[in-house]
Amino acid sequence: MKIRLSTGREIPVEKGQSVLEALKAAEFYLVASCGGKGTCGKCRIRLLEGKPEVRGYGKLTNEEKKAGLVLACQSYPEGDLKIEVPETSRLVIGEKIAVSRAENLLALLGSLGKKVDPVLKEIALDLPRPTLDDPLSDLERLKRELRTSGGLQEDFYFASDFLRKLGKKLREADWKILFRYAGHEAVSVVPRDDTDGHPAVHYGAAVDIGTTTVVVYLVNLIDGKVIDVGLTYNSQMRHGDDVITRIVYATEQGGLHELRRAVREDINGLIETMARRHGIPLEEIELAVLSGNTTMSHLFWGLDPGSIREEPYVPAVSFFPLMSAQDARLSMNPEGPVYTMPCIASYVGGDIVSGVLASGMHRKEEIALFMDIGTNGEIAVGNNEWLITAACSAGPCFEGSGIRHGMRATEGAIEGVKINPRTFLPEVSVIGNGGPPRGVCGSGMIDAVSEMFLKGIVDRKGNFHQERNIPGLRIGPEGHEYVLASSPMGDITLTEVDVENILRAKAAVYAGVSTLLKQVGLTLDVIERIYIAGGFGNYLNVEKAIILGMLPDMPREKFTFLGNTSITGAYLALVSEELKKEAEAVAARMTYAELSVSADFMNEYMSALFLPHTDASQFPTVEALLKDS
Amino acid sequence: MKIRLSTGREIPVEKGQSVLEALKAAEFYLVASCGGKGTCGKCRIRLLEGKPEVRGYGKLTNEEKKAGLVLACQSYPEGDLKIEVPETSRLVIGEKIAVSRAENLLALLGSLGKKVDPVLKEIALDLPRPTLDDPLSDLERLKRELRTSGGLQEDFYFASDFLRKLGKKLREADWKILFRYAGHEAVSVVPRDDTDGHPAVHYGAAVDIGTTTVVVYLVNLIDGKVIDVGLTYNSQMRHGDDVITRIVYATEQGGLHELRRAVREDINGLIETMARRHGIPLEEIELAVLSGNTTMSHLFWGLDPGSIREEPYVPAVSFFPLMSAQDARLSMNPEGPVYTMPCIASYVGGDIVSGVLASGMHRKEEIALFMDIGTNGEIAVGNNEWLITAACSAGPCFEGSGIRHGMRATEGAIEGVKINPRTFLPEVSVIGNGGPPRGVCGSGMIDAVSEMFLKGIVDRKGNFHQERNIPGLRIGPEGHEYVLASSPMGDITLTEVDVENILRAKAAVYAGVSTLLKQVGLTLDVIERIYIAGGFGNYLNVEKAIILGMLPDMPREKFTFLGNTSITGAYLALVSEELKKEAEAVAARMTYAELSVSADFMNEYMSALFLPHTDASQFPTVEALLKDS
Repeated sequence: MKIRLSTGREIPVEKGQSVLEALKAAEFYLVASCGGKGTCGKCRIRLLEGKPEVRGYGKLTNEEKKAGLVLACQSYPEGDLKIEVPETSRLVIGEKIAVSRAENLLALLGSLGKKVDPVLKEIALDLPRPTLDDPLSDLERLKRELRTSGGLQEDFYFASDFLRKLGKKLREADWKILFRYAGHEAVSVVPRDDTDGHPAVHYGAAVDIGTTTVVVYLVNLIDGKVIDVGLTYNSQMRHGDDVITRIVYATEQGGLHELRRAVREDINGLIETMARRHGIPLEEIELAVLSGNTTMSHLFWGLDPGSIREEPYVPAVSFFPLMSAQDARLSMNPEGPVYTMPCIASYVGGDIVSGVLASGMHRKEEIALFMDIGTNGEIAVGNNEWLITAACSAGPCFEGSGIRHGMRATEGAIEGVKINPRTFLPEVSVIGNGGPPRGVCGSGMIDAVSEMFLKGIVDRKGNFHQERNIPGLRIGPEGHEYVLASSPMGDITLTEVDVENILRAKAAVYAGVSTLLKQVGLTLDVIERIYIAGGFGNYLNVEKAIILGMLPDMPREKFTFLGNTSITGAYLALVSEELKKEAEAVAARMTYAELSVSADFMNEYMSALFLPHTDASQFPTVEALLKDS
Repeated sequence: MKIRLSTGREIPVEKGQSVLEALKAAEFYLVASCGGKGTCGKCRIRLLEGKPEVRGYGKLTNEEKKAGLVLACQSYPEGDLKIEVPETSRLVIGEKIAVSRAENLLALLGSLGKKVDPVLKEIALDLPRPTLDDPLSDLERLKRELRTSGGLQEDFYFASDFLRKLGKKLREADWKILFRYAGHEAVSVVPRDDTDGHPAVHYGAAVDIGTTTVVVYLVNLIDGKVIDVGLTYNSQMRHGDDVITRIVYATEQGGLHELRRAVREDINGLIETMARRHGIPLEEIELAVLSGNTTMSHLFWGLDPGSIREEPYVPAVSFFPLMSAQDARLSMNPEGPVYTMPCIASYVGGDIVSGVLASGMHRKEEIALFMDIGTNGEIAVGNNEWLITAACSAGPCFEGSGIRHGMRATEGAIEGVKINPRTFLPEVSVIGNGGPPRGVCGSGMIDAVSEMFLKGIVDRKGNFHQERNIPGLRIGPEGHEYVLASSPMGDITLTEVDVENILRAKAAVYAGVSTLLKQVGLTLDVIERIYIAGGFGNYLNVEKAIILGMLPDMPREKFTFLGNTSITGAYLALVSEELKKEAEAVAARMTYAELSVSADFMNEYMSALFLPHTDASQFPTVEALLKDS
């Protein structure tokens, strides 16, 4: 049997295989947030010819069914099929997202009082040539010189690949070499160019493994400059949007291996593309630092993440040993060490340690609040004396998951919404070059709900004001919905269920902050600074997020947007051994609070499900605004 | 085109490929001591149908040519061929040689004052289960317990494979474990059986990588007992008999990889066979010690041996770092450390360090001479204060290479020769169960030449006494030859060229001893003990070897046969960490003398080319014998 696509491509399918599985086997990936369980309703396809066995329709409307739409994961072909795959159902893997603004990372390094001095060190050596009177082996000759000229008494660890290359390298360099090492690990021997007083350039890679996106900085390790930045989606997404779905997938036969391979190929694709673009041999990339949440770090190293999702929520590893690129199978010098930012707990990972490091809050006397709102939500509170952290299971709705027309903040996403107070018609801003809107991303959701609340379209509980005659407010397949935009592919709406999900997510974030502060016996007014991190942080409208009740109602000047602090922390640990150690010290002194079992958290969460909150006194500026309107 | 064997098997062959290459590609291996260069004349095949292009006949006689024999390496098919492969041309790879006597290794260990205490240690731990209040990661939990209950403050190195298994193992063992480690390396976590007070049994492998044979001892690491012994030929032999040919092959495209694979598969075949036979899971083999000459050690680890054969004869590595079984690709626990006995120089390897360790000569005041006569010849002289060593390039003739009817000491080899003083007819003893003799091995050669000398068949220069009318003495294709035995496959003879080669080999050994002693200003009479090692040492007739002038003419009670000391040393270093360290101390204090560039050695060598020696005073008992006869 085969499936013919409207583009003409033919894909074989076997009895008992779903259309989703058959397409996946042919490396044609669909969005499948739920991992192919028929619940997210995102893998829609249109049947053109043939009739598969359809085991369920999930969230498809009667209208959609009539139009021939089915879910690929619920459709089991019984003969040849011809189908059309709508643009919105396709997951584009390997597409490079445009590079955003280059941050002034060197300035940040300077502001932290550090210089470029990575854990990868080098020493110039001039080995005496072997003779019949001095026939020491290559390795012993190198060791002798390290002790004598080098003054390095330590016992280096020489990996077998290092040894395999040693003889050739020493002779090619005519015994005048640079020896590179990291801690006790011998990394490389490179020829020393005597005409040039400068050390030979070599490179490093800072890697942020996000649940949704992967970012790689290619860095010159001599001057600390970022040479290039690469971004791509995390291909693990084809197995689900959130970490829990992926952990479940990892525990299935071959799943862990597949997830490991998927993200490794994303990273390697970026590294190889950038290295080629700049004419850098992969072997000269000699150091890498990874930053990711605990699950991502486990999956990268092929560690079973199973215990992460089962009480008492214990990861296999939190402080990762230095491993080799060969072990990681990264496209770089196989002897190069790969450092993984330490994790705090199952749901507070190396990305948060990176974030705290990048914020510098761990060095100051002032008490700061750090919030990373990405696929999940993590927060940290503290200063140079104490640090406490928690995860607040906001879920991936701000990344588009669980929201009917939700999508990530890419081309076609509605990222801003204003509602005309008289006509109640929405004005939206769409990411991209003026194409039609395809969905709504996190910042668009926050804007939309807070505007709908301000304009009286939804009440404090998130219920739609049915009695009001508002254009765009209508009854849809999932109940009430508000039309944000019309598009040739159909209207983009926000449903009552969507609003409910958004309220749950914002409540989790806010309740996390309240509970954590309560646990340390503090109130919001002692917080002198709020750092907002996450890819999301780039677009977030603070005002609207406060109206929504996601961010606390604090003086707006206290908010600082840091962008992707996971990659910033990875960069800092890459170029500075001292900051790498500082990250470890941060991780070691951070206290973890498990909110999922806290009664306080549940109470705070229930209170925060309202717009902006049941306790109006916590949101004075919002209350003032409501009185005005 | 194809080659049809007389057995019916058909093997494809391409234009430009020799019969040897075509057979090799089909994993049908012929003896090719010279590596396929047409010089050793061992890869004879008989043409039955078809005519290849024959580029040379090497050492083939006219008689042999008439009988249809050609060299497989010099025959290039131009159409289909039908051939017969004589038994003597076939290299049997993977055949397990019968296990020789089990030595009392535990007694030896005791006599060295050591107990079974391998470098692989273990500690029993009882980890507290993780709870919501103590949600430390599996690795941090293990580390904490190692520090607290274990009292181990060191920073262990945890390989990624160890981490990958950790979570499952801890839970399967219900947190009651044995933690095994070697130095700083974490090796394994195994369940602790509380009902049994004894430590869980685990295993190790001692491996001797000889140029000709590979020996593996499978050892119980708790009681030190050898569970099984496996022997096989080193499959690298298909690429040449001696180390030089193999080094040359290793420097060709893919050669190193192929040689590495070949010997690794030999070792793995033995380990897997023995483990299966005793029901031992491969993962429970957690430690291995390798002992081999410098070239063998390099090839095993995939290290380029190229510089070994070029002046100033420098190996890549002499003190090998502890590497992992995963790196070695050995069939055992991938985290298990693999230790390689240290080498002294390019031609004095870990097998000699093993030998000295096994002899115990490095601990005694008496000055001893250690001789290892295998594929090459290495010697060491010294005591507990000093040690000096040298290689004497005896070449592989005692293993059968370069000798017309030479073969290794296996089934069908003439291993003993007596010549009747009246009839001049030889009486030979043949290894095996009464089958016909197929060739002559090293001890047979020594016997034969010394007997021929004693009985006046050859003179002091090794020239045949042509004028004497001796049965069996005749003119053959290479000049004079003496018939040792008749066989259905043709007579087994020793030619004048063979005798010349044997004299060169014995002269190299004797000159090595003389030169080394001269270098330290000593004479033979200070030597209180002579240790003879090498597979060869098992059969060697000292009396005959002295008559030949290979061994010095010393009181016979000073000679001690140690057999294969390379495997004995590997065993000792496997079961005792202290003896492993002792081996390193031996290697560190051994002085290496490079004989190949010594004028003294050349003089000594020229003098030793005679039977037994030009300086008769060095062989008084032989002179007395000659006067008597």
